[in-house]
Amino acid sequence: MFPPKALLGNDRSMAPQSPTAAGPLVAIGGAEDRTSDLEILKQVFSLSQPDSREVAVIATASGIPEQILPIYATAFGRLGASRVHALAIQSREQAADARNVTLIRQSGVIFFTGGDQLRLTSILGGSPVLEAVRTRLATGAVVAGTSAGAAAMPGTMIYNGCATDALRKGGVNMTFGLGLVAGLVIDSHFLARGRFTRLMEVGASNPEQLGVGIGEDAGVIIHPNRVLEAIGPGHVVLIDSRELAHTNIAELSMGEAVSIEHMILHALVSGHGFDIDARRYLDADALATCLAEAP
Amino acid sequence: MFPPKALLGNDRSMAPQSPTAAGPLVAIGGAEDRTSDLEILKQVFSLSQPDSREVAVIATASGIPEQILPIYATAFGRLGASRVHALAIQSREQAADARNVTLIRQSGVIFFTGGDQLRLTSILGGSPVLEAVRTRLATGAVVAGTSAGAAAMPGTMIYNGCATDALRKGGVNMTFGLGLVAGLVIDSHFLARGRFTRLMEVGASNPEQLGVGIGEDAGVIIHPNRVLEAIGPGHVVLIDSRELAHTNIAELSMGEAVSIEHMILHALVSGHGFDIDARRYLDADALATCLAEAP
Repeated sequence: MFPPKALLGNDRSMAPQSPTAAGPLVAIGGAEDRTSDLEILKQVFSLSQPDSREVAVIATASGIPEQILPIYATAFGRLGASRVHALAIQSREQAADARNVTLIRQSGVIFFTGGDQLRLTSILGGSPVLEAVRTRLATGAVVAGTSAGAAAMPGTMIYNGCATDALRKGGVNMTFGLGLVAGLVIDSHFLARGRFTRLMEVGASNPEQLGVGIGEDAGVIIHPNRVLEAIGPGHVVLIDSRELAHTNIAELSMGEAVSIEHMILHALVSGHGFDIDARRYLDADALATCLAEAP
Repeated sequence: MFPPKALLGNDRSMAPQSPTAAGPLVAIGGAEDRTSDLEILKQVFSLSQPDSREVAVIATASGIPEQILPIYATAFGRLGASRVHALAIQSREQAADARNVTLIRQSGVIFFTGGDQLRLTSILGGSPVLEAVRTRLATGAVVAGTSAGAAAMPGTMIYNGCATDALRKGGVNMTFGLGLVAGLVIDSHFLARGRFTRLMEVGASNPEQLGVGIGEDAGVIIHPNRVLEAIGPGHVVLIDSRELAHTNIAELSMGEAVSIEHMILHALVSGHGFDIDARRYLDADALATCLAEAP
C-alpha cells in the first residue's frame, strides 16, 4: 500500500536516507558471549576494513566502566585488534576531550557497551565524541553497540517502560537517541524481558518506524544499503506497523489500553534478513543476493 | 566548544542535514489570529511561490475538522489562495487515498491544524499523504502547522507532559514525530502553559536537540538554510543544551527531580532569528544578512 521510502528524495527530512557509502551498524540485544566463542563480537570485528583494526570501546552507558572495559579489551584483543582504546567517557567534559576524539577517528570498530541509554544520550548528545563516531560511520567504520548501546542508536529511543504491559498510552518513555540510523526503533533483551508490547506501543504512536526487538546473544547488522541481517544464536523480532489499519491511541487518556488493528510480526534467525525500506523479509538466498548487489 | 553540524557530512545519520533546496517550515505556537489581521497566516502564505497559490489544510490532528477547516479556508481565501483543499484525513485509509495525495502534490502551502499530535503521527506515520508532504517540502512548498501541527514536525515529539513540573525523570512523554526537521524539539502554547520544564527535561535527556518553545500567536519560520526567524506578536523561547555541563538524569528513578548545570536560554521577538547549527542568536540585521546570503 505504501511506497518504499527509497523512491522518495528529501534530504532535509528525517525519512530514511538513500544508500550512501558508509560502514555497517551492528545492534546487539545484550548478554552476548564475551569470554568463550565470541560469536557475535567476531562478526562485528570481521566487518572492519583490513587496514583499520583498531577498536574503540565506549563505556559511557555503564556505571562500572572499570569492570566492563577490560572484558571487551581482552575479547577484541583475542579477535586480532591491533589496539583497543578503552574509553570510559563518564562526563560531558570527557565527551569533548580532543584525545578521545582522536582515538575514535583512528578506530575501525567503535563499540558501545551496555548500561543505561540515558547516560549515553545525556553525556554524548551534541558532543565532539558523538560527531566523531558519526563521521567514522560515514567513512566506513563499523559502529556496534549492545543493550543500551543498541537501543540508543536510532533518532528516537526507548529508555524506560512498563515491564508487564506497555501497551497502555504512555507505557514507554522515549527521547532523542544518538541519531545513527533512521526509520526504526530498537529494543534489546527483547525475548528475555517480554518487550513485545513496548514496540507495539511505539508502532501505534507512529506506524512509520520499524520495531526491531533483539534477543540476548543475538544481533542485527544494519548494512549501508539498509538491509538488516540477523546474527548470533538468538532471535531478532520485527514489528512492522506501516500497514496499521487503526489504533485508538490518540483518543485515550494516559494509562488506558491501546487497541491495534493489523501489525506484521517477523522473527529472524541468523542468516535471515529484512529490507527496511521495501519492508521485505529475506531468506538466506534473498539476503545473499541483496548483499551481493550492494555497492 | 562543539563544531557546527553543517561541517560534518554523514548522509545516513539523523544529524541535521546540510542545506538543500527546499521550502520553509513554519511552526506556530497555537491560537494564532484566524479571523482579524491574520498576521501569522499572512506570513505563511507570503512564503509560497507565486505560481503555487493552492493551499491544502490538513485537519488530522483535530477531532472537529468540520468546525476548524472552514475557518482556515476562509482565512487563506482572504489572503489570495487560488484554491483551498480542506482535508479532514481522519483515518489510515484516508491517509493512503490517492485523491488526497494528488491535492497535496498540487499545493504550494500545506497547513496542519492543531489538535492532538498523536492523531497526526498515528494516522499519518508511514502514509502516502505524509510522503507527499515531505516531497512537496523538498521541492519548495511551504509546510506550516499550529499547536499540535507544530509540535509534531521534528523527528521526535512531545505528546504529553506534567503540567506543573515536568523536570522530573519521565515528566514528558515522547515518540517519533513527522520527521520534517532534524535537530530540534518543538513545544507550543509555551508561555501560556509554562512549559519551560518540558524542554529542560528533553535537553537533559539529550543535549544535542535545540528546544524551541513557541508562544501563542507567535511562530517561527525554519528556513531551508536552517535559520530560524521569529514572527508574530508573541515570543519564541529557545533552550539550548548543547553546552550542558552535567545532569543527574541517568542516575534517577522515574519521577525524581532532574538537576541541570548550564543551559542557555533565549527569547526571540518578531524579526529576530537563530542559526540552529551554529547556535548563534541573530538580531534583525544579522538575520537579514543570513537570509540574503542563502542560496
